[in-house]
Amino acid sequence: MSKILLTIAYDGTNYNGYQLQNDKPTIALMLNQAAREAFGVECKVTGCSRTDSGVHALGFCATVEPKNENDKITVPVSKIPIAMNIKLPDDISVLEAKEMDDSFHPRYDVISKEYIYKIHDSQVPNPFYRNYVLEYGRKITDDGIEKMNEACKHFLGTHRFDSFMSVGSKIEDTERTVYSAYVKRNGDIVEFSVCADGFLYNMVRIMVGTLLKVEMGKIKPTEISKIILAKDRNLAGFTAKPYGLYLKNVQYDT
Amino acid sequence: MSKILLTIAYDGTNYNGYQLQNDKPTIALMLNQAAREAFGVECKVTGCSRTDSGVHALGFCATVEPKNENDKITVPVSKIPIAMNIKLPDDISVLEAKEMDDSFHPRYDVISKEYIYKIHDSQVPNPFYRNYVLEYGRKITDDGIEKMNEACKHFLGTHRFDSFMSVGSKIEDTERTVYSAYVKRNGDIVEFSVCADGFLYNMVRIMVGTLLKVEMGKIKPTEISKIILAKDRNLAGFTAKPYGLYLKNVQYDT
Repeated sequence: MSKILLTIAYDGTNYNGYQLQNDKPTIALMLNQAAREAFGVECKVTGCSRTDSGVHALGFCATVEPKNENDKITVPVSKIPIAMNIKLPDDISVLEAKEMDDSFHPRYDVISKEYIYKIHDSQVPNPFYRNYVLEYGRKITDDGIEKMNEACKHFLGTHRFDSFMSVGSKIEDTERTVYSAYVKRNGDIVEFSVCADGFLYNMVRIMVGTLLKVEMGKIKPTEISKIILAKDRNLAGFTAKPYGLYLKNVQYDT
Repeated sequence: MSKILLTIAYDGTNYNGYQLQNDKPTIALMLNQAAREAFGVECKVTGCSRTDSGVHALGFCATVEPKNENDKITVPVSKIPIAMNIKLPDDISVLEAKEMDDSFHPRYDVISKEYIYKIHDSQVPNPFYRNYVLEYGRKITDDGIEKMNEACKHFLGTHRFDSFMSVGSKIEDTERTVYSAYVKRNGDIVEFSVCADGFLYNMVRIMVGTLLKVEMGKIKPTEISKIILAKDRNLAGFTAKPYGLYLKNVQYDT
Protein backbone atom coordinates (compact mmCIF):
# COMPACT_ATOMS: atom_id res chain seq x y z
CA MET A 1 0.00 0.00 0.00
CA SER A 2 1.89 3.02 -1.21
CA LYS A 3 -0.48 5.73 -2.48
CA ILE A 4 -3.64 6.71 -0.62
CA LEU A 5 -6.26 9.16 -1.89
CA LEU A 6 -7.78 11.16 0.96
CA THR A 7 -11.06 13.08 0.78
CA ILE A 8 -10.84 15.94 3.25
CA ALA A 9 -13.14 18.62 4.66
CA TYR A 10 -11.67 21.71 6.26
CA ASP A 11 -12.65 25.03 7.71
CA GLY A 12 -10.10 27.36 6.09
CA THR A 13 -10.67 30.24 8.55
CA ASN A 14 -7.48 29.76 10.54
CA TYR A 15 -5.14 28.77 7.69
CA ASN A 16 -3.00 30.52 5.09
CA GLY A 17 -4.65 28.44 2.39
CA TYR A 18 -3.82 24.92 1.30
CA GLN A 19 -0.30 25.11 -0.10
CA LEU A 20 2.88 24.69 2.05
CA GLN A 21 4.49 28.04 2.93
CA ASN A 22 7.44 27.16 5.16
CA ASP A 23 6.12 26.96 8.70
CA LYS A 24 2.99 29.08 8.23
CA PRO A 25 -0.19 27.27 9.26
CA THR A 26 -1.53 25.72 6.06
CA ILE A 27 -3.73 22.71 5.38
CA ALA A 28 -0.84 20.93 3.63
CA LEU A 29 1.45 21.42 6.64
CA MET A 30 -1.17 19.94 8.98
CA LEU A 31 -1.75 16.95 6.67
CA ASN A 32 2.00 16.30 6.40
CA GLN A 33 2.45 16.38 10.18
CA ALA A 34 -0.62 14.22 10.84
CA ALA A 35 0.42 11.63 8.22
CA ARG A 36 3.92 11.36 9.72
CA GLU A 37 2.49 10.88 13.20
CA ALA A 38 -0.31 8.53 12.14
CA PHE A 39 1.85 6.31 9.90
CA GLY A 40 5.25 6.61 11.60
CA VAL A 41 7.06 7.42 8.34
CA GLU A 42 7.87 10.67 6.51
CA CYS A 43 5.12 11.25 3.93
CA LYS A 44 4.59 13.29 0.80
CA VAL A 45 1.15 14.90 0.50
CA THR A 46 -0.03 16.14 -2.92
CA GLY A 47 -3.22 18.20 -3.20
CA CYS A 48 -5.72 18.41 -6.07
CA SER A 49 -5.41 22.21 -6.15
CA ARG A 50 -4.52 25.22 -4.06
CA THR A 51 -7.15 27.01 -2.06
CA ASP A 52 -6.64 30.54 -0.75
CA SER A 53 -6.61 31.79 2.82
CA GLY A 54 -10.11 31.53 4.29
CA VAL A 55 -11.49 29.27 1.54
CA HIS A 56 -13.15 26.06 2.78
CA ALA A 57 -13.46 22.51 1.49
CA LEU A 58 -16.19 19.90 1.76
CA GLY A 59 -14.42 17.36 -0.47
CA PHE A 60 -10.80 18.34 -1.14
CA CYS A 61 -8.66 15.49 -2.48
CA ALA A 62 -5.00 14.79 -1.75
CA THR A 63 -2.74 11.78 -2.01
CA VAL A 64 -0.40 10.69 0.74
CA GLU A 65 2.54 8.33 0.18
CA PRO A 66 5.79 7.52 1.98
CA LYS A 67 8.65 9.84 0.98
CA ASN A 68 11.14 7.01 1.06
CA GLU A 69 10.19 4.20 -1.34
CA ASN A 70 11.33 1.57 1.16
CA ASP A 71 8.76 2.79 3.70
CA LYS A 72 5.21 1.56 3.79
CA ILE A 73 1.91 2.79 5.20
CA THR A 74 0.85 -0.17 7.35
CA VAL A 75 -2.41 1.23 8.79
CA PRO A 76 -5.34 -0.57 7.06
CA VAL A 77 -7.02 1.78 4.60
CA SER A 78 -10.39 1.60 6.41
CA LYS A 79 -8.72 2.87 9.60
CA ILE A 80 -6.84 5.74 7.96
CA PRO A 81 -9.55 8.41 8.47
CA ILE A 82 -9.69 7.69 12.22
CA ALA A 83 -5.88 7.42 12.51
CA MET A 84 -5.37 10.76 10.79
CA ASN A 85 -8.27 12.57 12.48
CA ILE A 86 -6.77 11.78 15.89
CA LYS A 87 -3.64 13.66 14.83
CA LEU A 88 -5.31 16.49 12.88
CA PRO A 89 -6.63 19.71 14.45
CA ASP A 90 -10.42 19.66 14.70
CA ASP A 91 -10.93 22.11 11.84
CA ILE A 92 -9.58 19.53 9.35
CA SER A 93 -11.16 16.10 8.92
CA VAL A 94 -10.35 13.13 6.68
CA LEU A 95 -13.71 11.80 5.43
CA GLU A 96 -12.50 8.89 3.29
CA ALA A 97 -9.34 7.03 2.27
CA LYS A 98 -8.86 4.87 -0.81
CA GLU A 99 -5.87 2.96 -2.18
CA MET A 100 -4.70 4.12 -5.63
CA ASP A 101 -2.31 2.94 -8.34
CA ASP A 102 1.17 4.42 -8.26
CA SER A 103 0.43 6.16 -11.56
CA PHE A 104 -2.49 8.17 -10.10
CA HIS A 105 -1.97 11.93 -9.70
CA PRO A 106 -4.51 13.97 -7.70
CA ARG A 107 -4.04 17.11 -9.85
CA TYR A 108 -3.38 15.79 -13.37
CA ASP A 109 -6.09 13.12 -13.23
CA VAL A 110 -8.92 15.49 -12.26
CA ILE A 111 -11.93 15.25 -14.60
CA SER A 112 -13.94 17.99 -12.94
CA LYS A 113 -14.12 20.10 -9.82
CA GLU A 114 -17.21 21.64 -8.27
CA TYR A 115 -17.17 24.79 -6.17
CA ILE A 116 -20.04 26.44 -4.34
CA TYR A 117 -20.25 30.02 -3.08
CA LYS A 118 -22.68 31.03 -0.30
CA ILE A 119 -24.35 34.46 -0.06
CA HIS A 120 -26.61 35.62 2.79
CA ASP A 121 -29.12 38.14 1.46
CA SER A 122 -30.55 39.71 4.61
CA GLN A 123 -30.13 43.22 6.00
CA VAL A 124 -29.45 41.67 9.40
CA PRO A 125 -26.13 39.80 9.53
CA ASN A 126 -26.08 36.29 11.00
CA PRO A 127 -23.23 35.90 13.53
CA PHE A 128 -22.86 32.20 12.70
CA TYR A 129 -22.21 32.99 9.03
CA ARG A 130 -19.36 35.44 9.52
CA ASN A 131 -16.48 33.22 8.36
CA TYR A 132 -18.61 30.99 6.12
CA VAL A 133 -20.98 33.06 4.01
CA LEU A 134 -20.80 36.42 2.21
CA GLU A 135 -23.05 38.97 3.93
CA TYR A 136 -24.62 40.74 0.95
CA GLY A 137 -26.67 43.08 3.16
CA ARG A 138 -29.75 43.20 0.92
CA LYS A 139 -32.49 40.92 -0.38
CA ILE A 140 -31.97 39.07 -3.66
CA THR A 141 -35.36 38.74 -5.38
CA ASP A 142 -36.57 35.76 -7.43
CA ASP A 143 -36.11 38.01 -10.44
CA GLY A 144 -32.50 38.65 -9.40
CA ILE A 145 -31.86 34.91 -9.15
CA GLU A 146 -33.41 34.44 -12.59
CA LYS A 147 -31.12 37.11 -14.06
CA MET A 148 -28.07 35.51 -12.46
CA ASN A 149 -29.11 32.14 -13.90
CA GLU A 150 -29.45 33.69 -17.37
CA ALA A 151 -25.93 35.09 -16.94
CA CYS A 152 -24.66 31.67 -15.77
CA LYS A 153 -25.64 30.09 -19.12
CA HIS A 154 -22.99 32.21 -20.84
CA PHE A 155 -20.26 30.66 -18.66
CA LEU A 156 -21.09 27.19 -20.02
CA GLY A 157 -18.77 25.54 -22.54
CA THR A 158 -15.15 26.04 -23.51
CA HIS A 159 -13.79 29.58 -23.35
CA ARG A 160 -10.60 31.45 -22.61
CA PHE A 161 -11.50 32.89 -19.18
CA ASP A 162 -8.83 35.65 -18.98
CA SER A 163 -11.49 38.15 -17.85
CA PHE A 164 -12.16 35.91 -14.84
CA MET A 165 -8.56 35.49 -13.71
CA SER A 166 -6.74 37.68 -11.20
CA VAL A 167 -4.22 39.98 -12.89
CA GLY A 168 -0.68 38.78 -12.22
CA SER A 169 -1.46 35.09 -12.63
CA LYS A 170 1.21 33.56 -14.84
CA ILE A 171 -0.86 30.75 -16.35
CA GLU A 172 -0.60 30.73 -20.17
CA ASP A 173 -3.38 28.32 -21.09
CA THR A 174 -6.51 30.13 -19.94
CA GLU A 175 -8.97 27.84 -21.70
CA ARG A 176 -11.36 26.02 -19.39
CA THR A 177 -14.60 24.09 -19.94
CA VAL A 178 -17.51 24.86 -17.64
CA TYR A 179 -19.91 21.91 -17.36
CA SER A 180 -22.55 23.48 -15.13
CA ALA A 181 -23.20 26.85 -13.48
CA TYR A 182 -26.33 27.93 -11.65
CA VAL A 183 -27.71 29.88 -8.70
CA LYS A 184 -30.36 28.60 -6.31
CA ARG A 185 -31.90 29.67 -3.03
CA ASN A 186 -31.51 27.46 0.03
CA GLY A 187 -33.39 29.16 2.88
CA ASP A 188 -31.67 32.47 3.63
CA ILE A 189 -28.62 31.49 1.55
CA VAL A 190 -28.26 32.09 -2.19
CA GLU A 191 -25.80 29.54 -3.50
CA PHE A 192 -23.77 29.65 -6.71
CA SER A 193 -22.58 26.28 -7.96
CA VAL A 194 -20.06 25.78 -10.76
CA CYS A 195 -18.43 22.65 -12.17
CA ALA A 196 -15.55 22.77 -14.66
CA ASP A 197 -12.51 20.80 -15.81
CA GLY A 198 -10.38 23.34 -13.99
CA PHE A 199 -10.35 26.90 -12.69
CA LEU A 200 -8.04 29.89 -13.12
CA TYR A 201 -6.77 31.86 -10.13
CA ASN A 202 -9.78 33.47 -8.34
CA MET A 203 -12.09 32.44 -11.21
CA VAL A 204 -15.07 31.42 -9.04
CA ARG A 205 -14.79 34.50 -6.83
CA ILE A 206 -14.71 36.81 -9.89
CA MET A 207 -17.69 34.94 -11.38
CA VAL A 208 -19.57 35.62 -8.12
CA GLY A 209 -18.62 39.32 -8.11
CA THR A 210 -19.83 39.54 -11.72
CA LEU A 211 -23.11 37.73 -10.98
CA LEU A 212 -23.76 40.15 -8.12
CA LYS A 213 -23.28 43.06 -10.57
CA VAL A 214 -25.88 41.33 -12.76
CA GLU A 215 -28.19 41.11 -9.73
CA MET A 216 -27.68 44.84 -9.09
CA GLY A 217 -28.57 45.61 -12.73
CA LYS A 218 -25.10 46.98 -13.50
CA ILE A 219 -24.33 44.22 -16.02
CA LYS A 220 -26.94 42.62 -18.31
CA PRO A 221 -26.98 38.80 -18.36
CA THR A 222 -26.27 38.81 -22.11
CA GLU A 223 -23.13 40.90 -21.58
CA ILE A 224 -21.31 37.94 -20.00
CA SER A 225 -20.36 36.55 -23.42
CA LYS A 226 -18.84 39.89 -24.43
CA ILE A 227 -16.92 40.09 -21.16
CA ILE A 228 -15.49 36.60 -21.76
CA LEU A 229 -14.55 37.42 -25.38
CA ALA A 230 -12.86 40.71 -24.40
CA LYS A 231 -10.29 38.84 -22.22
CA ASP A 232 -10.15 41.91 -19.98
CA ARG A 233 -10.25 41.49 -16.20
CA ASN A 234 -11.51 45.08 -15.83
CA LEU A 235 -14.84 44.27 -17.46
CA ALA A 236 -15.80 41.55 -14.98
CA GLY A 237 -17.02 42.20 -11.41
CA PHE A 238 -15.13 42.36 -8.13
CA THR A 239 -13.39 39.37 -6.55
CA ALA A 240 -15.86 38.16 -3.91
CA LYS A 241 -14.47 37.51 -0.40
CA PRO A 242 -12.78 34.12 0.09
CA TYR A 243 -14.83 32.86 3.04
CA GLY A 244 -18.04 32.17 1.05
CA LEU A 245 -16.17 29.70 -1.18
CA TYR A 246 -16.12 25.91 -0.78
CA LEU A 247 -14.40 23.27 -2.90
CA LYS A 248 -17.28 20.81 -2.85
CA ASN A 249 -16.25 17.86 -4.96
CA VAL A 250 -13.45 16.53 -7.16
CA GLN A 251 -14.23 13.93 -9.82
CA TYR A 252 -11.67 11.35 -11.03
CA ASP A 253 -12.05 8.64 -13.65
CA THR A 254 -11.57 5.84 -11.14
CA MET B 1 -38.37 56.15 24.22
CA SER B 2 -36.54 54.89 27.25
CA LYS B 3 -36.53 51.09 27.37
CA ILE B 4 -35.80 48.97 24.31
CA LEU B 5 -36.06 45.18 24.15
CA LEU B 6 -33.40 43.72 21.85
CA THR B 7 -33.50 40.22 20.37
CA ILE B 8 -29.92 39.13 19.78
CA ALA B 9 -28.08 36.22 18.14
CA TYR B 10 -24.49 35.50 19.05
CA ASP B 11 -21.73 33.02 18.49
CA GLY B 12 -20.42 32.48 22.02
CA THR B 13 -17.12 30.88 20.94
CA ASN B 14 -14.92 33.89 21.63
CA TYR B 15 -16.63 35.16 24.80
CA ASN B 16 -16.51 34.49 28.52
CA GLY B 17 -20.27 34.03 28.53
CA TYR B 18 -22.95 36.71 28.69
CA GLN B 19 -22.49 38.36 32.07
CA LEU B 20 -20.17 41.35 32.68
CA GLN B 21 -16.84 40.33 34.26
CA ASN B 22 -14.83 43.55 34.52
CA ASP B 23 -13.03 43.96 31.20
CA LYS B 24 -13.11 40.32 30.06
CA PRO B 25 -14.73 39.87 26.65
CA THR B 26 -18.38 39.09 27.37
CA ILE B 27 -21.56 39.59 25.36
CA ALA B 28 -22.84 42.13 27.92
CA LEU B 29 -19.64 44.19 27.62
CA MET B 30 -19.95 44.30 23.83
CA LEU B 31 -23.64 45.31 24.02
CA ASN B 32 -22.87 48.06 26.54
CA GLN B 33 -20.10 49.49 24.37
CA ALA B 34 -22.14 49.26 21.16
CA ALA B 35 -25.19 50.93 22.79
CA ARG B 36 -23.07 53.81 24.09
CA GLU B 37 -21.54 54.34 20.65
CA ALA B 38 -24.79 53.89 18.72
CA PHE B 39 -26.94 56.11 20.96
CA GLY B 40 -24.34 58.59 22.24
CA VAL B 41 -25.38 58.14 25.88
CA GLU B 42 -24.26 55.81 28.67
CA CYS B 43 -26.63 52.82 28.69
CA LYS B 44 -27.65 50.05 31.04
CA VAL B 45 -28.07 46.64 29.43
CA THR B 46 -30.05 43.92 31.28
CA GLY B 47 -30.06 40.36 29.95
CA CYS B 48 -32.79 37.70 30.22
CA SER B 49 -30.32 35.21 31.70
CA ARG B 50 -26.64 34.31 31.88
CA THR B 51 -25.10 32.02 29.31
CA ASP B 52 -21.77 30.28 29.92
CA SER B 53 -18.54 30.56 27.98
CA GLY B 54 -18.97 28.98 24.55
CA VAL B 55 -22.79 28.81 24.70
CA HIS B 56 -24.61 30.40 21.74
CA ALA B 57 -27.86 32.29 21.26
CA LEU B 58 -30.35 32.48 18.41
CA GLY B 59 -32.82 34.67 20.28
CA PHE B 60 -31.34 36.07 23.50
CA CYS B 61 -33.29 39.03 24.93
CA ALA B 62 -31.93 42.08 26.70
CA THR B 63 -33.20 45.56 27.46
CA VAL B 64 -31.16 48.67 26.89
CA GLU B 65 -31.99 52.04 28.49
CA PRO B 66 -30.12 55.26 29.27
CA LYS B 67 -28.28 55.12 32.61
CA ASN B 68 -29.12 58.73 33.32
CA GLU B 69 -32.87 59.34 33.38
CA ASN B 70 -32.43 62.70 31.65
CA ASP B 71 -30.84 61.01 28.63
CA LYS B 72 -32.87 59.65 25.76
CA ILE B 73 -32.33 57.12 22.98
CA THR B 74 -33.17 59.19 19.91
CA VAL B 75 -32.47 56.61 17.19
CA PRO B 76 -35.86 55.45 15.77
CA VAL B 77 -36.64 51.96 17.01
CA SER B 78 -36.76 50.51 13.47
CA LYS B 79 -33.18 51.69 12.89
CA ILE B 80 -31.77 50.34 16.17
CA PRO B 81 -30.71 46.89 14.83
CA ILE B 82 -28.66 48.50 12.02
CA ALA B 83 -27.28 51.22 14.33
CA MET B 84 -26.12 48.66 16.87
CA ASN B 85 -24.86 46.06 14.36
CA ILE B 86 -22.51 48.65 12.86
CA LYS B 87 -20.89 48.99 16.30
CA LEU B 88 -21.02 45.33 17.33
CA PRO B 89 -18.38 42.71 16.43
CA ASP B 90 -19.60 40.41 13.67
CA ASP B 91 -20.19 37.46 16.00
CA ILE B 92 -23.03 39.35 17.73
CA SER B 93 -26.08 40.61 15.86
CA VAL B 94 -29.21 42.50 16.95
CA LEU B 95 -32.13 40.91 15.08
CA GLU B 96 -34.99 43.04 16.39
CA ALA B 97 -35.72 46.02 18.62
CA LYS B 98 -39.02 46.88 20.31
CA GLU B 99 -40.09 49.69 22.64
CA MET B 100 -41.26 48.52 26.08
CA ASP B 101 -42.97 50.03 29.13
CA ASP B 102 -40.69 51.22 31.90
CA SER B 103 -42.09 48.47 34.14
CA PHE B 104 -40.89 45.66 31.83
CA HIS B 105 -38.04 43.50 33.12
CA PRO B 106 -36.29 41.07 30.72
CA ARG B 107 -35.58 38.48 33.45
CA TYR B 108 -38.56 38.70 35.81
CA ASP B 109 -41.17 38.88 33.03
CA VAL B 110 -40.04 35.74 31.22
CA ILE B 111 -42.86 33.25 30.66
CA SER B 112 -40.71 30.56 29.07
CA LYS B 113 -37.31 29.96 27.54
CA GLU B 114 -36.42 27.40 24.91
CA TYR B 115 -32.96 25.88 24.55
CA ILE B 116 -31.70 23.48 21.90
CA TYR B 117 -28.63 21.25 22.07
CA LYS B 118 -27.00 19.86 18.90
CA ILE B 119 -25.25 16.48 18.68
CA HIS B 120 -23.39 15.12 15.62
CA ASP B 121 -23.59 11.34 15.60
CA SER B 122 -20.98 10.32 13.05
CA GLN B 123 -17.63 8.57 13.53
CA VAL B 124 -16.09 11.17 11.23
CA PRO B 125 -15.99 14.62 12.81
CA ASN B 126 -17.23 17.59 10.75
CA PRO B 127 -14.72 20.47 10.91
CA PHE B 128 -17.50 23.05 10.53
CA TYR B 129 -19.25 21.74 13.66
CA ARG B 130 -16.30 21.99 16.04
CA ASN B 131 -17.47 25.02 18.04
CA TYR B 132 -21.18 24.53 17.39
CA VAL B 133 -22.16 20.89 17.83
CA LEU B 134 -21.15 18.09 20.22
CA GLU B 135 -19.18 15.40 18.34
CA TYR B 136 -20.66 12.21 19.81
CA GLY B 137 -18.40 9.96 17.70
CA ARG B 138 -20.93 7.20 17.12
CA LYS B 139 -24.29 6.65 15.42
CA ILE B 140 -27.50 7.24 17.34
CA THR B 141 -30.12 4.75 16.08
CA ASP B 142 -33.87 5.41 15.68
CA ASP B 143 -34.29 3.18 18.70
CA GLY B 144 -31.86 5.36 20.66
CA ILE B 145 -33.85 8.47 19.74
CA GLU B 146 -37.06 6.71 20.83
CA LYS B 147 -35.51 5.82 24.21
CA MET B 148 -34.32 9.41 24.70
CA ASN B 149 -37.84 10.64 23.89
CA GLU B 150 -39.31 8.25 26.45
CA ALA B 151 -36.86 9.65 28.98
CA CYS B 152 -37.79 13.22 27.98
CA LYS B 153 -41.41 12.63 29.04
CA HIS B 154 -40.27 12.30 32.66
CA PHE B 155 -38.80 15.81 32.58
CA LEU B 156 -42.24 17.30 31.82
CA GLY B 157 -44.16 19.11 34.54
CA THR B 158 -43.18 20.78 37.79
CA HIS B 159 -40.30 19.22 39.74
CA ARG B 160 -37.44 20.17 41.99
CA PHE B 161 -34.54 19.68 39.58
CA ASP B 162 -31.65 19.51 42.12
CA SER B 163 -30.26 16.41 40.36
CA PHE B 164 -29.92 18.51 37.22
CA MET B 165 -28.09 21.46 38.75
CA SER B 166 -24.32 21.89 39.04
CA VAL B 167 -23.07 21.35 42.57
CA GLY B 168 -22.12 24.66 44.18
CA SER B 169 -25.03 26.62 42.73
CA LYS B 170 -26.56 28.71 45.52
CA ILE B 171 -30.12 28.88 44.23
CA GLU B 172 -32.63 27.85 46.91
CA ASP B 173 -35.81 27.45 44.89
CA THR B 174 -34.98 24.56 42.58
CA GLU B 175 -38.54 24.03 41.34
CA ARG B 176 -39.00 24.52 37.62
CA THR B 177 -41.80 23.63 35.19
CA VAL B 178 -40.81 21.96 31.93
CA TYR B 179 -43.39 22.59 29.19
CA SER B 180 -41.82 20.52 26.41
CA ALA B 181 -38.78 18.28 25.95
CA TYR B 182 -38.00 16.10 22.93
CA VAL B 183 -35.24 14.79 20.68
CA LYS B 184 -35.42 14.75 16.88
CA ARG B 185 -33.06 14.07 14.01
CA ASN B 186 -32.28 16.82 11.54
CA GLY B 187 -29.92 15.36 8.91
CA ASP B 188 -26.68 14.38 10.64
CA ILE B 189 -27.61 16.34 13.77
CA VAL B 190 -29.63 14.96 16.68
CA GLU B 191 -31.26 17.90 18.41
CA PHE B 192 -32.62 18.09 21.95
CA SER B 193 -35.19 20.82 22.52
CA VAL B 194 -36.50 21.88 25.93
CA CYS B 195 -38.85 24.66 26.98
CA ALA B 196 -39.41 25.63 30.62
CA ASP B 197 -40.35 28.57 32.82
CA GLY B 198 -36.70 28.75 33.88
CA PHE B 199 -33.54 26.69 34.16
CA LEU B 200 -31.08 25.92 36.96
CA TYR B 201 -27.33 26.26 36.45
CA ASN B 202 -26.19 23.80 33.74
CA MET B 203 -29.64 22.16 33.76
CA VAL B 204 -29.90 21.66 29.98
CA ARG B 205 -26.33 20.37 29.67
CA ILE B 206 -26.89 17.84 32.48
CA MET B 207 -30.19 16.78 30.85
CA VAL B 208 -28.23 16.12 27.63
CA GLY B 209 -25.51 14.15 29.43
CA THR B 210 -28.25 12.07 31.08
CA LEU B 211 -30.11 11.47 27.80
CA LEU B 212 -26.86 10.27 26.22
CA LYS B 213 -26.48 7.76 29.08
CA VAL B 214 -30.03 6.63 28.23
CA GLU B 215 -28.96 6.26 24.59
CA MET B 216 -25.95 4.18 25.69
CA GLY B 217 -28.25 1.92 27.73
CA LYS B 218 -26.63 2.92 31.02
CA ILE B 219 -29.81 4.55 32.35
CA LYS B 220 -33.34 3.29 31.60
CA PRO B 221 -35.83 5.92 30.39
CA THR B 222 -38.12 5.16 33.36
CA GLU B 223 -35.27 5.87 35.82
CA ILE B 224 -35.43 9.62 35.06
CA SER B 225 -38.30 10.11 37.53
CA LYS B 226 -36.30 8.42 40.30
CA ILE B 227 -33.25 10.55 39.49
CA ILE B 228 -35.37 13.70 39.75
CA LEU B 229 -36.96 12.58 43.04
CA ALA B 230 -33.58 11.67 44.59
CA LYS B 231 -32.35 15.30 44.27
CA ASP B 232 -28.82 13.97 43.89
CA ARG B 233 -26.56 15.38 41.16
CA ASN B 234 -24.46 12.19 41.21
CA LEU B 235 -27.31 10.11 39.77
CA ALA B 236 -27.72 12.19 36.60
CA GLY B 237 -25.33 12.10 33.63
CA PHE B 238 -22.31 14.25 32.79
CA THR B 239 -22.52 17.95 31.97
CA ALA B 240 -22.40 18.06 28.14
CA LYS B 241 -19.93 20.53 26.57
CA PRO B 242 -21.15 24.12 26.32
CA TYR B 243 -20.69 24.63 22.57
CA GLY B 244 -23.66 22.44 21.50
CA LEU B 245 -26.06 24.65 23.46
CA TYR B 246 -28.20 27.49 22.03
CA LEU B 247 -30.70 29.75 23.78
CA LYS B 248 -33.29 29.67 21.01
CA ASN B 249 -36.22 31.71 22.16
CA VAL B 250 -37.56 33.74 25.10
CA GLN B 251 -41.29 34.22 25.50
CA TYR B 252 -42.83 37.27 27.21
CA ASP B 253 -46.46 38.11 27.84
CA THR B 254 -46.37 41.14 25.57
